[in-house]
Formats: sequence, C-alpha cells, structure tokens
Amino acid sequence: MNGSSTDPAEGSEQPDAREEIMRATYHILCAEGYAGLTMRAIATEAGTSKSLIHYHYDTKDDLLLAFLDRFIDRLDKFLAEIQAETDDHEARLVAFLDRFVVDPDEDERQSFWRALLELRLRAAHDEEFRDQLEANNEAIREALTEIIAEGIDDGAFREVDSRATADLILDALEGARTRQATLGTDDAPLGTHESVREHVVSDLLV
Amino acid sequence: MNGSSTDPAEGSEQPDAREEIMRATYHILCAEGYAGLTMRAIATEAGTSKSLIHYHYDTKDDLLLAFLDRFIDRLDKFLAEIQAETDDHEARLVAFLDRFVVDPDEDERQSFWRALLELRLRAAHDEEFRDQLEANNEAIREALTEIIAEGIDDGAFREVDSRATADLILDALEGARTRQATLGTDDAPLGTHESVREHVVSDLLV
Repeated sequence: MNGSSTDPAEGSEQPDAREEIMRATYHILCAEGYAGLTMRAIATEAGTSKSLIHYHYDTKDDLLLAFLDRFIDRLDKFLAEIQAETDDHEARLVAFLDRFVVDPDEDERQSFWRALLELRLRAAHDEEFRDQLEANNEAIREALTEIIAEGIDDGAFREVDSRATADLILDALEGARTRQATLGTDDAPLGTHESVREHVVSDLLV
Repeated sequence: MNGSSTDPAEGSEQPDAREEIMRATYHILCAEGYAGLTMRAIATEAGTSKSLIHYHYDTKDDLLLAFLDRFIDRLDKFLAEIQAETDDHEARLVAFLDRFVVDPDEDERQSFWRALLELRLRAAHDEEFRDQLEANNEAIREALTEIIAEGIDDGAFREVDSRATADLILDALEGARTRQATLGTDDAPLGTHESVREHVVSDLLV
C-alpha cells in the first residue's frame, strides 16, 4: 500500500544511485511520457542496470511513487527559501506564483506537465497513484494556503478563506499550464499569472 | 486537413443517423475513454452497423473531429439562450460560469472531461486534433470575452482586459474540473466557482 516510503537502499553504500535513477526517470517521462517509462529505459538513461534499479525499487510503480513523493520534500525546501528571502507577504506570494510560470521555450517542463497529466488520468482508476498525487497536490495547496494565512494574520492581506483562495490561484495556474502543454498556447501561464496578480493578489492587499 | 466539416451524409434520407452516432460517441468516450472508442463500439452503442458509420464518416478521426466541432454550435445556442434570458451583465456572466460546475454525482460529465484530457494529450502530437481542440477552446474563450466586453461597454463592469479576464476564469474552472475528474476532489468546481465569483466577478462590478 505504501511503496513510496519503503526504501530498500536505506544506508546503502551508493547514496547517489537513487538520485541518478530519479533524474533518469524525470528525463524519460519528459522525452517519452508514461508509456515510454520502462525499467530498461531508465537503466539506459541512468547508465546502470535493470537489476540495480530493482535492488532499490521492487517495481516500476514503487519507483514512480517514490519519484512523485520527492516533490513534496523539494516543495518544503522551496518554501524555506521563500521564507528566508523576504518578510514581505506579497513578495512571498508572488515568488510562489512565479514558480508556476513556464516559458514557451521550456520544452522539458511542458513535456513533464503532460506526463503528470497522463499519471493523473491513470490515477482516476488507481487508488495508490491517486493517493500519492493527491498528497502532492495537497502539499502545494497547503503551502500556498499557509502563505496567504500568514499574510492575513499579519494584517497584510484582508480576511479571506485562505484555502479557497489558494485553490482558485492554483486551479488557474494549472489550467493555464494544461492549455500551454496540450494546445500550444505558449503564453497561457504568463498571461494567467498576470491576471492572478491583477485580480486576486491585488484584491487581497489591505 | 479539414475532415470535421466535410459531411458525406448532407441531404441524406436519415437525418437522425448522424445524431445517433454522435450520441453513441459521447457515451463510449464517457464509459471507455479514447482507448475504447472503436467504430465497432460506436456501432453497437448506436444500434447500427460499422458500414453505415463509414458511410457518414470516412475514418474514426473524421468522426471524432466532427463530434468535437458540434460543441461549437452548441455553445452558440447556449449563448443565445443566455442573451435572451436576461439583460443583466452580471447574471449573464454567472449563468455562463454555472455551466462549468460539475456536481460530485455527475459521473458521466467527469468521465467526459477525462476523455477530453486524453484527446488534449493526443493533440500535443497531432496537428489536426490540436487545431480542432484549439478552435473549441477559442470559441469558449471568445464567448466569455464577449460577455465581459459587453458589460464593460454598458458600464456594468470596470475597464479590464476582457480576454485576459476570461482566460483567468476559464483556466481556474478547467483546472478545478481536472482536479475533480482525476484526483477525486469532488467539490473542486463548486469551490472554485464560488471563489471566482468572490474574487474576480465582484472585482469587475462597478
């Protein structure tokens, strides 16, 4: 049930092997999508063997769940950076939003978003993936909720339902990324980012 | 290139045959997704033969492009209804938004949204489908842009970039539908609909 947190390589003598496998997974997902993600393809990309990958991850699903789980840790790091950078609540909010803007020439990030959508469609029929992807989504939404709630507490933002506002912002940014990655509307994320600032962020400011 | 508008059955003695095929296509897409959409499955669902379907549509792709194209006509009808119903610009805008709220128990509409996402992912690599899906998307965005622009012209809404505001609203509503249909966050469309009203629509009112 919880393949994403069991890690047979804990304390292994090769701390970078899993890192390399995760990096390879990202590149295969971007280049080939979920359909192209085989243990063999990951091994080739990582310059290792299928058996070494199986030493670290029992199945491809275990590997993929662990891959998705890592994004939650990365998000925590990113949030700590934002907190350290500035005390200004609006600046923190905008720094968070900036992360979601994908430029037209960032082909890899667009490919990755398509791969994530593929995984999400699979998740509709697969409880384990749905739980993991929901945990990822929840972590992002909680992070933005927290930024908004802190702004309200400090009197920088007006009283709003911080979670509902975070959902609105993230749904808009994710909708724009989907439009860009599937219909080729290159400037969708930047345009919607600007509109979020104009209509939602400015509406928050006291 | 333009398989969606060539129609071999124009003036046919069976005006309802295509209607029945389109209805069957919708049901197969909802029940089986794009992968399950075969001419045979459509024929069975429509209670007709594969050869009759081929009489109307050369290929499955022609059929699917025609299916998508019909949504543009339907949108025009829906807009005419809204226009006829009320002169109030806020009421027209809200009536438009209401259309995008999918209740948790509307399983078929959620399945259909997943099928559309599958088609969108395919569109990333298929120019003909991308053109059709972009035309559909563009029609919806132009319709909402028009509603907002008319409100501005009549002095009911403040001066904003009507297209950018329409994009923000639709990205948010589409993002919420994707979240609902893939992660099972049942109340996402209703919640985001309410937030759009609170933050964006109320911000438009003069």
